Amino acid sequence: MLDPLFRPKGVAIIGASERPLNIGNRILRNLKRYGYTGDIYPVNPKSPEVEGIKAYPSVSEVPGQVDLAHIVIRNSLVPMAMEDCAKKGVKVVIINTAGFKEIGGEGVELEKKVVEIGRKHNIRIFGPNCQGVMNSDPEVKLYANFTFTPLREGAISLLAQSGGVGEILNNRLLELDAGVRMYASNGNACDISIPEILEYMGEDEGTRVIIVHIESLARPGEFMEVARKVARKKPILAMKTGRTEEGAKAVSSHTGMLLKQDIAIRVIFQKCGIIPFTHHEEICRTAMAFASQPLPQGRNVGIITNTGGPAIIATDECVDAGLRMPDLTDATKAALKETLFPEASISNPVDVLATGTPEHYAASIGAMLGDDNINSILLHFVTPFFVDCEAVATAISNVAKDASKPILGVVMTNKENWAGTLEIIRSSGIPAYDFPETAARALAHMTDYSQWRREYAGEKRGTSVEMSLSSIEKARQLVRSCEKGEFIPADAAFQLLEIYKIPVAKYAVAKTGEELLNAAGQIGYPVVLKVDSPEIVHKTDEGALVLGIENDEALREQHRNLASRFSQYNPRFLVQEQLIGGIEVVVGGKAEGDLGHIIMFGLGGIYIEVLRDVAFGLAPLTPLEAHRMLSSIKGRALLDGVRGGEGADVAALAQVILKVSRLVCDLPEIREMDLNPIIAFPPGQGAKVADVRIRKGTRC
Amino acid sequence: MLDPLFRPKGVAIIGASERPLNIGNRILRNLKRYGYTGDIYPVNPKSPEVEGIKAYPSVSEVPGQVDLAHIVIRNSLVPMAMEDCAKKGVKVVIINTAGFKEIGGEGVELEKKVVEIGRKHNIRIFGPNCQGVMNSDPEVKLYANFTFTPLREGAISLLAQSGGVGEILNNRLLELDAGVRMYASNGNACDISIPEILEYMGEDEGTRVIIVHIESLARPGEFMEVARKVARKKPILAMKTGRTEEGAKAVSSHTGMLLKQDIAIRVIFQKCGIIPFTHHEEICRTAMAFASQPLPQGRNVGIITNTGGPAIIATDECVDAGLRMPDLTDATKAALKETLFPEASISNPVDVLATGTPEHYAASIGAMLGDDNINSILLHFVTPFFVDCEAVATAISNVAKDASKPILGVVMTNKENWAGTLEIIRSSGIPAYDFPETAARALAHMTDYSQWRREYAGEKRGTSVEMSLSSIEKARQLVRSCEKGEFIPADAAFQLLEIYKIPVAKYAVAKTGEELLNAAGQIGYPVVLKVDSPEIVHKTDEGALVLGIENDEALREQHRNLASRFSQYNPRFLVQEQLIGGIEVVVGGKAEGDLGHIIMFGLGGIYIEVLRDVAFGLAPLTPLEAHRMLSSIKGRALLDGVRGGEGADVAALAQVILKVSRLVCDLPEIREMDLNPIIAFPPGQGAKVADVRIRKGTRC
Repeated sequence: MLDPLFRPKGVAIIGASERPLNIGNRILRNLKRYGYTGDIYPVNPKSPEVEGIKAYPSVSEVPGQVDLAHIVIRNSLVPMAMEDCAKKGVKVVIINTAGFKEIGGEGVELEKKVVEIGRKHNIRIFGPNCQGVMNSDPEVKLYANFTFTPLREGAISLLAQSGGVGEILNNRLLELDAGVRMYASNGNACDISIPEILEYMGEDEGTRVIIVHIESLARPGEFMEVARKVARKKPILAMKTGRTEEGAKAVSSHTGMLLKQDIAIRVIFQKCGIIPFTHHEEICRTAMAFASQPLPQGRNVGIITNTGGPAIIATDECVDAGLRMPDLTDATKAALKETLFPEASISNPVDVLATGTPEHYAASIGAMLGDDNINSILLHFVTPFFVDCEAVATAISNVAKDASKPILGVVMTNKENWAGTLEIIRSSGIPAYDFPETAARALAHMTDYSQWRREYAGEKRGTSVEMSLSSIEKARQLVRSCEKGEFIPADAAFQLLEIYKIPVAKYAVAKTGEELLNAAGQIGYPVVLKVDSPEIVHKTDEGALVLGIENDEALREQHRNLASRFSQYNPRFLVQEQLIGGIEVVVGGKAEGDLGHIIMFGLGGIYIEVLRDVAFGLAPLTPLEAHRMLSSIKGRALLDGVRGGEGADVAALAQVILKVSRLVCDLPEIREMDLNPIIAFPPGQGAKVADVRIRKGTRC
Repeated sequence: MLDPLFRPKGVAIIGASERPLNIGNRILRNLKRYGYTGDIYPVNPKSPEVEGIKAYPSVSEVPGQVDLAHIVIRNSLVPMAMEDCAKKGVKVVIINTAGFKEIGGEGVELEKKVVEIGRKHNIRIFGPNCQGVMNSDPEVKLYANFTFTPLREGAISLLAQSGGVGEILNNRLLELDAGVRMYASNGNACDISIPEILEYMGEDEGTRVIIVHIESLARPGEFMEVARKVARKKPILAMKTGRTEEGAKAVSSHTGMLLKQDIAIRVIFQKCGIIPFTHHEEICRTAMAFASQPLPQGRNVGIITNTGGPAIIATDECVDAGLRMPDLTDATKAALKETLFPEASISNPVDVLATGTPEHYAASIGAMLGDDNINSILLHFVTPFFVDCEAVATAISNVAKDASKPILGVVMTNKENWAGTLEIIRSSGIPAYDFPETAARALAHMTDYSQWRREYAGEKRGTSVEMSLSSIEKARQLVRSCEKGEFIPADAAFQLLEIYKIPVAKYAVAKTGEELLNAAGQIGYPVVLKVDSPEIVHKTDEGALVLGIENDEALREQHRNLASRFSQYNPRFLVQEQLIGGIEVVVGGKAEGDLGHIIMFGLGGIYIEVLRDVAFGLAPLTPLEAHRMLSSIKGRALLDGVRGGEGADVAALAQVILKVSRLVCDLPEIREMDLNPIIAFPPGQGAKVADVRIRKGTRC
């Protein structure tokens, strides 16, 4: 529980100062200026008073309760201050001071020492090398931070790894009149972590939406655990920066962490229903909508305008984002025809014309609120000088207040001359945007989130593939029985797939020519012949694979050939049913630290190698997630069947994906597996794995 | 010459009014308020004076010179007012009044009549159904418009088809302190056209950059002609709206024009070097940079910051946009190491730290201005309360003023409390952005434009393919000689390609089995057999094509087969060399109204059909354009050669593209042609056309 941090009874500032350019002064003044409702205790051994407040030589001498203490003194003095805090019974410290892990060497040692002291005395630590926290709850009014953005009440909470980015976001939300509920930027995060703060914000009733900025995740699994829980209750909007290689390098030199996390972060966001952003403006504008409007219950948007051009832009943007612009019902049209000017457009987008009256706006919004075809409304209003704009705003406000569908406003105006109009619209809770595209994108994010919550959040977690305990045990023993090599031999790999009922091409392993001929006889020609050796990983590239062997004679010849070429490995051979027709696809799994396994799906060959057309998901996958992976690749039309092609058995592929997900969950010692290629036959005809490669962890 | 419109000597308002909600009143007040330097003549038969200015019963009775007259009276009275203008010698009228072409029926007739009157009396018409124009040139100060955005001097000119979009852009530029040079929104555009205004703005010395908003182009060829000329001198930033089908529908119901122009507009923009945008904010922010900063002479960016997080975002954005983040030279690093704090980062991005001083900023900028590795600078400054920010701003300003490399500033601050700091930076001409990503994108656009201007603008226009007049004549006769059918027969089509020296697979046309055998004998097996009939367009789909015929016997059998299956057409046959290996690609050309032909290139089969991975260009193509088409497809790695593949003879493909471009320019009666597939062999081995389909215009 982080109440002592965000709702402290009493705050001490160890290092409070009269010097105005000093952080200890700034925090003290911020606490005072924004009306912190608890007691403030400057700690300064040299002054009896700081900024007009009685000061104490040590925190242990403060008379009242001190839940939270800022430490802003020199880094080497921090351990001593911590000991003082322990004596006083302080529950949390914010160590603003820098000079810890981020400078390496002795800083690392110092940070360890501080963490130890905290553990010993049960003091939680926020920071070090950090900004601090804020809480605009009127009961608290806490500005425990040295930054400059004024505190204004709002429903958006902000959690930023980079203090700079946090400050930009906070400042922008203020400019947009949106306000902030809680703010936290925890620097080195030696104790109180991002997931912990996220969980706390998730439970805070005054927070309707959370913005998170992430540069790198120390423990992604922990983050995911919390984020999934929170995102089901309220939207999490996240900025991940350092997404390019050069950006990651900049993060590295900034935070000392370099992780190839981009795909991992993407799948985590996806799995948790976190909405990803790259731009400050878009994340702030979207948060505004979430903070004040209900979620849309479907993808259908109604647009109202009094000027054509911007409505066209809104339409473009909605359609690009996958929203729909349905026609209005006849009843709605009839109602509009009766009320609006004869030249007005009564289809979607509805154009009430520049001369549109308050009644016209009210009627249009009312009609769309009552139209079952419409789930959300984008309301455009350019303020003509020849219209009573405040009357229009009042009419909008009256009909829109407490609407059960989200309404986002685009008010195109000179903000000084029409300040009254803007104020009326804003006071109704409708967020007012400058541009149609910004409102449309915010609405698209709300719609996607709402759909995710309906579809996924209710869905049972965990893979849907049923496995008996004995089968799992069999699989485990099979993997363990394999020699120490990095890669599992081909026949064991195929057996493993068979235990999980993943269909594979008929195969047999043999050493001699005679054994091969027998096996081919049972499998039936044509067959494929492969060298099975752990030394040969890319069989095609190394010429260790022959396709389309039609008869005994050819098989004998190819065997001789390969046996002599690869004699140095003294290899075994795999003879396999040659799969005819179908579409090549690939399914893979890869362990990613404490996250578990990332599952990959893509079309085979050139699609992966040239176009990188692949979809990722995080195990354990649900059936919905597997289907979303299948449908999210760019070449999906190939699976559905295009000119001349019959398409693929998508249901069978979904099963393969789900079974691979289950397999790697049951056998976490598998570091990497690739089913490549899988041949997918037309719908109803299944799919078969033609080749598989499984790499174990070294401890296995 | 549009001087009488943008720099009129004397403006009359026919329909000037005292009523404040009247357009005639608003225009009069705007002209007065913003200090129009010429004379203003209200025309109103009922009042001797309007808004304190002497009024006249008719424009013909005005004593002084009237270059420009606004007409804001009822639509039916406009022709009479035009006649009055003729008597007076008015040179241009702005018809603000609506009720013309846009309402259909009698409105169309009325507009025609007005155009006739204008022609007869040599009066140019702006509008009708339009806003008007503005010109902030201090010599003119013309606000001939009824909108609300105040006039502020600037170097950005604005030309908008939609008045609503124009107003939003104008308003936003004002909010950004950027100001506007000229503004025009010409509604129905019955006479003075978008290209004409664009040309005028291009010639205006006070205009450094032009923003254009387009919903649909009436005469794209004319627009292109002008835009190419202008874009070589100054950047044109364009928003095309109505890019989705739904958006185009909305344009249609708005303007009565529905054109499938999206690809056409894209290639026009590309060809002219017009920079395309979809968002208001981005176009305005980019214009700001162009308006004040020199063009970067290369793609290398240097980033300076005093806070890590935002610099990471800038890095991500630069790299995503194709800019480079080079390392600094050792000399630069050494200079920085000497000046900056020891903990500062002296690689790119340079981090002077939050405590960075004015000297640190000055040294960093100076070093990058002198570093040949760096072409442009992104300067980040979050305003810490413990730093003298105005001193930092002054230092930046001093070193950056008159720099020969562009410097874009990201100033992250509370705009009220640090207004002085912002003002110092702005007054140095450095545009100040709120977010790193916005500045980075603006810089990327500048860099792309600058590169385009260096590479393309100097290049000789026109195709580089040389053709003798006699060959062209031969080609023309060949096309004319073809029967009236829509499609040219296969042999004629191949002959046409041969005239243009486009390499084709060996072929022959035959009717009987014996003729086929002879032909195949000369070509050499294996061969392909195709039914050649204008009725059969998609040969593969209809089973009118057999591949891999190995000998006489097989050819005879397949011929019998096809002859009987397609007997209703009494077809001829095409026998062709079967091309072995290589990569399938497609080149096409399609006539697009007065634009000429759009040329298309793509990888064959699934790449086009499933992935729509194609590039477009406008004939006549230059070699650079052809190469850009080849390299801009997503599957370009396939052409370069990927795992196991040898790649394609890209030079040969560029020749095919250029020759097709030349061919359709010489033979504009060709409406559409498809070379599909072309087999591209490995580098140095050329490419051959395997099939071609040519559709003529009906008049041929």
